[in-house]
Amino acid sequence: MLPSNSLHVCSCWCLCPSAGLSAAKLLKASGLDPVVLEARDRVGGRTFTVQNKEAKWVDLGGAYIGPTQNRILRLAKEYGIKTYKVNEQENLVHYVNGKSYPFKGSLPPMWNPIALMDFNNLFRTMDKMGEEIPRDAPWRAPHAEEWDKMTMQELFEKLCWTRTARRFATLFVNVNVTSEPHEVSALWFLWYVKQCGGTMRIFSTTNGGQERKFVGGANQVSQCMARELGDRVKLQSPVYRIDQTGDMVVVETVDKQTYKAKYVIVATPPALNLKMHFNPELPPLRNQLINRVPMGSVIKCMVYYRENFWRKKGYCGSMVIEEEGAPIGLTLDDTKPDGTVPCIMGFILAHKCRKLSSLSKEERRICEIYSKVLGTDEALHPVHYEEKNWCEEEYSGGCYTAYFPPGILTQFGRVLREPVGKLYFAGTETATEWSGYMEGAVQAGERAAREVMCAMGKLQPNQIWQPEPENDEIRALPFVTTFWERNLPSVDGFLKFLGVSTFLSAAAAAGLVAYKKGIIPRS
Amino acid sequence: MLPSNSLHVCSCWCLCPSAGLSAAKLLKASGLDPVVLEARDRVGGRTFTVQNKEAKWVDLGGAYIGPTQNRILRLAKEYGIKTYKVNEQENLVHYVNGKSYPFKGSLPPMWNPIALMDFNNLFRTMDKMGEEIPRDAPWRAPHAEEWDKMTMQELFEKLCWTRTARRFATLFVNVNVTSEPHEVSALWFLWYVKQCGGTMRIFSTTNGGQERKFVGGANQVSQCMARELGDRVKLQSPVYRIDQTGDMVVVETVDKQTYKAKYVIVATPPALNLKMHFNPELPPLRNQLINRVPMGSVIKCMVYYRENFWRKKGYCGSMVIEEEGAPIGLTLDDTKPDGTVPCIMGFILAHKCRKLSSLSKEERRICEIYSKVLGTDEALHPVHYEEKNWCEEEYSGGCYTAYFPPGILTQFGRVLREPVGKLYFAGTETATEWSGYMEGAVQAGERAAREVMCAMGKLQPNQIWQPEPENDEIRALPFVTTFWERNLPSVDGFLKFLGVSTFLSAAAAAGLVAYKKGIIPRS
Repeated sequence: MLPSNSLHVCSCWCLCPSAGLSAAKLLKASGLDPVVLEARDRVGGRTFTVQNKEAKWVDLGGAYIGPTQNRILRLAKEYGIKTYKVNEQENLVHYVNGKSYPFKGSLPPMWNPIALMDFNNLFRTMDKMGEEIPRDAPWRAPHAEEWDKMTMQELFEKLCWTRTARRFATLFVNVNVTSEPHEVSALWFLWYVKQCGGTMRIFSTTNGGQERKFVGGANQVSQCMARELGDRVKLQSPVYRIDQTGDMVVVETVDKQTYKAKYVIVATPPALNLKMHFNPELPPLRNQLINRVPMGSVIKCMVYYRENFWRKKGYCGSMVIEEEGAPIGLTLDDTKPDGTVPCIMGFILAHKCRKLSSLSKEERRICEIYSKVLGTDEALHPVHYEEKNWCEEEYSGGCYTAYFPPGILTQFGRVLREPVGKLYFAGTETATEWSGYMEGAVQAGERAAREVMCAMGKLQPNQIWQPEPENDEIRALPFVTTFWERNLPSVDGFLKFLGVSTFLSAAAAAGLVAYKKGIIPRS
Repeated sequence: MLPSNSLHVCSCWCLCPSAGLSAAKLLKASGLDPVVLEARDRVGGRTFTVQNKEAKWVDLGGAYIGPTQNRILRLAKEYGIKTYKVNEQENLVHYVNGKSYPFKGSLPPMWNPIALMDFNNLFRTMDKMGEEIPRDAPWRAPHAEEWDKMTMQELFEKLCWTRTARRFATLFVNVNVTSEPHEVSALWFLWYVKQCGGTMRIFSTTNGGQERKFVGGANQVSQCMARELGDRVKLQSPVYRIDQTGDMVVVETVDKQTYKAKYVIVATPPALNLKMHFNPELPPLRNQLINRVPMGSVIKCMVYYRENFWRKKGYCGSMVIEEEGAPIGLTLDDTKPDGTVPCIMGFILAHKCRKLSSLSKEERRICEIYSKVLGTDEALHPVHYEEKNWCEEEYSGGCYTAYFPPGILTQFGRVLREPVGKLYFAGTETATEWSGYMEGAVQAGERAAREVMCAMGKLQPNQIWQPEPENDEIRALPFVTTFWERNLPSVDGFLKFLGVSTFLSAAAAAGLVAYKKGIIPRS
């Protein structure tokens, strides 16, 4: 029991590396005296770096960072944590209909011209729709209600003419938000892609969200912040009760400690607010919101090999796998930056994650699919394996992030960040740039910290939201679209064009025949 | 702290009147020694009867019972609680496009023949689809995956040709499950209607789910059970921790008591499992399920009048209101059985509930709509008002029941009732008959109690699920469909028929002309 009046701000539960910790760090730097209550026996939430002999270190949770994620890069730089580029020098592979197609670039190319038009139109349209959606208030988009009533599957059915485009679009949802197109609101998904910088930025390795990793693991950022905060960070302290009826907020933890604070930042995913019993009860909309934003489903699998055989075969290690029978949907090279510990990282996503949760690693037959895609038996002989099923984590609920089923964002989105008395809300789900990522967690944590400082009169309201200057080493390049990408018709447009031109040709031909036959008078 | 070894079974949190209490009642009757831990300061969960001078007694939560709900009727009979019929003697009113249409029967009649065909086909099709869905395992329906990927809105778009049918269908979802058609899985909703006995049984007053109420209020059933259980029922004891790592399950409550039990029945809505911290963690699928089944949104509003003016005007008090601007979607007469305390009960449903949550009762303008629908200013002069917004209840999360967004039932339904170690799951959401109702809560509680007895070797596995004999006073009548209801074509079918008959008539006419003109030789 620590009924100390000196505790000014109490930040409960951190997540990704950082919402809680980065809030506390900023508060401490501002002369306040925060305490961080962490449910687990480690900091970092959805980042989780394991060290062992075989893997040296391995990120079993959030790992990737890239250009435009300037807040997390700023923190890393401050602590001297270096980044390295995920290998993408050789070919990527797109595996579809049982065949491997090597390619370069962000998205696999389409050879069938109808599929190409369809695919091009789909991605162009998702970005265009995204342009209409305000980052900080997607519920205010001009078509918010209409798009929120639709699932992404419905949108794909409306937009796509070809099975090829629809199938890749499904994988695109699976990979980005670890859920299925029929589970998520179209408005939410389009917002999500937009606030990451668009379809190219979110999906790309080079110049995108997966460009880099931290040397030594992503969890270090949290560890460094925790070290800086010292014994302000209380591990194994899941909060189960928050009482706001007195002058001070009283917070009780499962390990039977009581903390008092002037303000509390709740930095869990929204759904995990349910782990706490509130007095007074939360307002109606927040009470229902936290029932409505489930976490995605993913198992992160690392397969280790004696040799980096894929690079010898001209593959970088990135595989985009479209096959219902394959457990893995996307892989990236996870070999260490110095070339040691050859490893392929793969995600088991959404419905496959649920289906395969109860199977052993052998039964999941991950190496078999790698062997098929890379065309070599070498993939069948791993030397080590690591995995993490995030669905089993009580204090995450799933990974990478919360998704919004149809109808929820327009009805409940407004209260996502709305303070409740002396409670403020952080967590990457409350961010407006790279929400769902480590970057979003830092943005959210720092914003919530500034909200508290504002409530204490130490800041002006217009100082709460602060833009972040671009990192001077890791710069974002624009994604240049080609003339064809911008102007290729959709299949729909193409068919209309065909129809019109067929009609015109037919009319011209008929005119010519008529003229020749003398039906049209020759003046 | 009650570390008593004599506590055999500990049933946490009751809900509706009964999952927890009816489990405990059956266990006690079987010679066991259960304890019920109730989060609130009252028993009854989602039933909530208030007594005061103005209303005498009023059910602000679950209230209605009807034929085929034999378990709850059995309990009521045991305790001598009488039922009475909700008044439906005079006309019901259907209010649409700003006009009132009096009617008799379960569903408002349609006058436009196209709308009639459409409406008839829609309800017939929902029941037909329901026939394919197993009550106890909807995920095994032949089209389970396809229907689960669809929202009810998508299904309505596929089935309905007219705005009239689509709009009424929306209200039908709103009223039955307090959520929007675009929020719920079609598979789930069709299952829900089916396990209540079909579209007519679920929606009807006479011969349906709203036929009766309990004289004195629905909460009495729980109160009687609680009285029978005596000090085994612990109020204000929200459970926040369940530890299964030792021989006995250790349960801790927010009021700092510790209970030990051989088995625990968790009788909360699935989402409220999240209020507890589990050691060991729940298995992955259950851990994610409880994130994915939100509770509906409803405010129950009771408007009291000096006189039962509607009956004098030939209205029974039931109003089916289709108008976006109207707060209330459905009303029923709530006058006491002896004719005293004239009252109209009305529901603010789904998106309207969210929109109006923050308004005062005056701002919601409930009496105005009653005045319009009933065509009299008398509705503008209430003498008393009671309401309950269930969205604000921390220990319900919403009402009436949990809904399944698209994709969840097929992926997670299997674990809804699956025990986790020594934890068994009750709550109306786990029922297979009238799930979502008081009846379902009793079925679920008794089934969970028998599961525990089976685990203790006191019952055979085939005794866990027990059918309930029909109540000898309140009997179900079949819903007789007319020849036309069974055989009227859908709009689709009608148009095809029109097409074919137009073609045939045209062909016949052409034949006749040809014959007359001598093109067909007259043999």
